[in-house]
Amino acid sequence: MELPSKLLDSAVNEFSRLPGVGRKTALRYALHLLKNEKHTSHSLAQSILNMRTQIKFCAQCYNISDTDVCEICLNLSRVQTTICVVQDVRDVMAIENTGMYRGVYHVLGGLISPIEGIGPSDLFIDVLLKRVQENKVSEIIFALSATTEGDTTAFYLSKKLQSFSITISTLARGVSVGDELEYADEITLGRSLQNRIPYKGH
Amino acid sequence: MELPSKLLDSAVNEFSRLPGVGRKTALRYALHLLKNEKHTSHSLAQSILNMRTQIKFCAQCYNISDTDVCEICLNLSRVQTTICVVQDVRDVMAIENTGMYRGVYHVLGGLISPIEGIGPSDLFIDVLLKRVQENKVSEIIFALSATTEGDTTAFYLSKKLQSFSITISTLARGVSVGDELEYADEITLGRSLQNRIPYKGH
Repeated sequence: MELPSKLLDSAVNEFSRLPGVGRKTALRYALHLLKNEKHTSHSLAQSILNMRTQIKFCAQCYNISDTDVCEICLNLSRVQTTICVVQDVRDVMAIENTGMYRGVYHVLGGLISPIEGIGPSDLFIDVLLKRVQENKVSEIIFALSATTEGDTTAFYLSKKLQSFSITISTLARGVSVGDELEYADEITLGRSLQNRIPYKGH
Repeated sequence: MELPSKLLDSAVNEFSRLPGVGRKTALRYALHLLKNEKHTSHSLAQSILNMRTQIKFCAQCYNISDTDVCEICLNLSRVQTTICVVQDVRDVMAIENTGMYRGVYHVLGGLISPIEGIGPSDLFIDVLLKRVQENKVSEIIFALSATTEGDTTAFYLSKKLQSFSITISTLARGVSVGDELEYADEITLGRSLQNRIPYKGH
């Protein structure tokens, strides 16, 4: 689609770089901004710039933060000796949303993936080992994706961590709460059978 | 979802003002920008600002333009005496994409809609009448939505234009090219039967 203005075309091009945004959606965003007051566009642009230039990554866990060390790491009521290892910031938010975790995090910044050329040195693994060594960490929880990459990363980390005397655990894999058995895939069902847990009546 | 940073939260809020963008999508956009180079965010923000502050609306037809008068109005190979009346800029692009129209446009900026409180004075109708009066306009084509608002606007315009001796036409309504008859809705099918055209074998 040829656009009647180069300025519009440039905005549409930039919007369509966002994930999942095609040129039609990008055009919709641009025309929406043109239709609205100027300050709407200003605050969008400004908040993007502020976020990109001022946001920090926690010096300890690499979570997104407004301060040098994030609120979770600074929170003394959280168990600093339990570290939950996750792939990225979104996973921290997901686990925080459960409201069931009182320890701290470590964001790896990705997963080991030979296909995508991501090796252990591209991730914040050394820093994690240093954290374990320097602090009295007693438990590491792998909260990684149930994919080959997630499993590879967990395996690599477990090898690196075996010299420390700490508990290593991983998220339980099993049938989702609310799921009907017949629709669960066979691998998940198999794993949840293998790792069955003692029944506790409520 | 509680976000770990106020800067991120503000960007997510701004993104979620865009049409069809919820907080999850907005967060995806923000994290994408954080993951990428700083200049990606810079050029997005800059192009939004440039577009919103520098873009013009053609003084003649109210189409989006980089110049005071748009390229279509300035193009001397276009028939300046045929004006196609459309609701907004997107319709201009849609018609231009057909490559079948050689006249000029007039963008109304909306449709008459008593429910939404949009009256004739909120649209660029007076300017259209002035254009018709001052230039030797010979034909007006209504290319408006096939909705109550579109029909109301066309009716209002036709009344206003009846004092000028010009041809007034409207887009043909009918079965879409490629559509199977049985799936066409009855109103469209009825209209296309009523307005049947002489058969020309190719």
